[in-house]
Amino acid sequence: MKRSYIREILDAIDENTISFAGGLPNEDLFPSKQLKKASKKVFKNKNSLQYSKSQGIDSLREKIANFYTKYYDFETSKDEILITTGSQQAFDIILKSLDAKNLVVESPSYIGALSAFKILKTNIQEFKTFEQLENILKKDDVIYSISDYQNPSTNTYTKKQREEFANILHKKDVYFIEDAAYSLLSFDGKIRKPISRLYKDKSYHLGTFSKIVAPGLRVGWIRANKELIEKILAVKESLDLHTSTFNQMLIDTYLDENDVFKHIKKNAKNYKKRMNFMADCMEKYLPNFEFKRPKGGMFIYGRFNNIDDSMNLAKEALKENVAFVPAEVFYFDNQKSNEARFNFTNCDFKKTKKGIRLLAKLIK
Amino acid sequence: MKRSYIREILDAIDENTISFAGGLPNEDLFPSKQLKKASKKVFKNKNSLQYSKSQGIDSLREKIANFYTKYYDFETSKDEILITTGSQQAFDIILKSLDAKNLVVESPSYIGALSAFKILKTNIQEFKTFEQLENILKKDDVIYSISDYQNPSTNTYTKKQREEFANILHKKDVYFIEDAAYSLLSFDGKIRKPISRLYKDKSYHLGTFSKIVAPGLRVGWIRANKELIEKILAVKESLDLHTSTFNQMLIDTYLDENDVFKHIKKNAKNYKKRMNFMADCMEKYLPNFEFKRPKGGMFIYGRFNNIDDSMNLAKEALKENVAFVPAEVFYFDNQKSNEARFNFTNCDFKKTKKGIRLLAKLIK
Repeated sequence: MKRSYIREILDAIDENTISFAGGLPNEDLFPSKQLKKASKKVFKNKNSLQYSKSQGIDSLREKIANFYTKYYDFETSKDEILITTGSQQAFDIILKSLDAKNLVVESPSYIGALSAFKILKTNIQEFKTFEQLENILKKDDVIYSISDYQNPSTNTYTKKQREEFANILHKKDVYFIEDAAYSLLSFDGKIRKPISRLYKDKSYHLGTFSKIVAPGLRVGWIRANKELIEKILAVKESLDLHTSTFNQMLIDTYLDENDVFKHIKKNAKNYKKRMNFMADCMEKYLPNFEFKRPKGGMFIYGRFNNIDDSMNLAKEALKENVAFVPAEVFYFDNQKSNEARFNFTNCDFKKTKKGIRLLAKLIK
Repeated sequence: MKRSYIREILDAIDENTISFAGGLPNEDLFPSKQLKKASKKVFKNKNSLQYSKSQGIDSLREKIANFYTKYYDFETSKDEILITTGSQQAFDIILKSLDAKNLVVESPSYIGALSAFKILKTNIQEFKTFEQLENILKKDDVIYSISDYQNPSTNTYTKKQREEFANILHKKDVYFIEDAAYSLLSFDGKIRKPISRLYKDKSYHLGTFSKIVAPGLRVGWIRANKELIEKILAVKESLDLHTSTFNQMLIDTYLDENDVFKHIKKNAKNYKKRMNFMADCMEKYLPNFEFKRPKGGMFIYGRFNNIDDSMNLAKEALKENVAFVPAEVFYFDNQKSNEARFNFTNCDFKKTKKGIRLLAKLIK
């Protein structure tokens, strides 16, 4: 078992590093004042510091269920929501509950999911096209996908592709984990409908407050039908009994007192500006880095057409105090790659420009 | 995979239930005011809402390490501490990092640990005597023990027994998980030295703020040597990236501003009174319930000499709105038992008396 390359980088860097590496939201956008206000109410309730239900507190689950019904057009009750300690925990919970042997992931895929899957010794296969997917999948396999602004590729499935995806799921009768970590961080304000909505019986739809409120609270959730919830509940309680009562109540009260979708809209606008600035710098200083501007999320992903191995570049860059993520860590078998992921949410304009120029110099 | 009997009871009961079931600290003793004060400082630091290191924040680990050096006479550095999301998470982390096949536990043992071990399909054996332990253990097996006020048996190893225990560990060359969840909740103020102190290289010593500050924050820790910490760190990050930054900082600031050992002493005094009251009620109304008064912790454990199966009694009692835990759930193979566990920390005197009398009536 090796540590994640990204978490190792995050441990190694300091305030002098220009970091495009992590998936860190911008601290300046955290609703600190509003959360502080909410905390006053939460501290008044002694139960906020006590043990609580493994599935999560009722009123927060109710609110999340309402999000689904209202924004995803995906009718959901609070019994179909289970609160997790960050979305990351969902991977371990679901896989353990299914005792899954075979898992299929997008190529490339989210490094944190790959780590969680590997540790359970799941056999992993990857797909790039629907044709590959259909060939690989067998009944009761588990498939993991990020349908909006995929991490790292930034790919977003179109409406037609979602239907095609769901058809394959139905045909193959598999378990489907749909990760919606970035789905609400849309630059054009459009919220796309989950694939799970077209495949309700054996799907798990994952959400998190990490990207839209604050990751330091570690509160995420799983949406699944009641029978699946019952199964994952037994695993959840064996892992950490329940997610922090205080943090659940804090977010619940924050949601009572604020319009979180207004907050998300403000953040998305800010992130879009940062994305465009970084993209402009890349086009100017890194003409051989080929990428498409993403429509949401937190990353720019592309390939260096003038180098073979982005890991070498990443190592050289780190020596110069610039961090980005070489794509080989996003492939389950760590294949060499000339692709790379850049985070644009946690770095100011000046540093962004300086970092990109430094990379340009290194490549020369 | 079945849910834990205790967590199911906790979900089922309401404010009308007289509950001796959970291991819930008393809400009235939570340092709510002090934590609220600490939170003001924490909210000022934007990083409290951001992602953070998987091992845990430095200053909190430093403080925990100092506890070891000072109170356990067990020299420890912050590099030997890893923060967990409650002590419960430690079981999953350690077992995964060891890829352990055989596990040996005390008989009876903590239900939450048994659940976490079972889900990883570990082969479980149990021991009651050191002779049994020595016969069962093979090199690189994992052994799990609660050395102070064991949950549920309330057993505490003597100094001599600790030495004998450590000798067996050395002889058999195994991995040792020592759970110290209740070790600081001592009624006589005496803090006993961990067995791990005599077996440093392959031991994990678990601690938690759940029983001494507040369980709703879900902050615990593992103490192990650096090589073992490196291994569990990779697992920890794959599980939930890290424990809530905010909650770690909240406790860290609380510890800066308050004398937590004074707080623990106050709680232990309160719990001792409650324990003695419950014990008095039991001696008066349940003369056939055989038990020893515990020297710390949160439970009274004993056996009903006039009934065969405490599970039947527990079910009947629940119908009358009285909850306690029948001991079969504390045996890994769920063997029938006439033993039972009663929590005394979360019920007032009046209800305690009423509940015990109701049980007496039911037994008749």
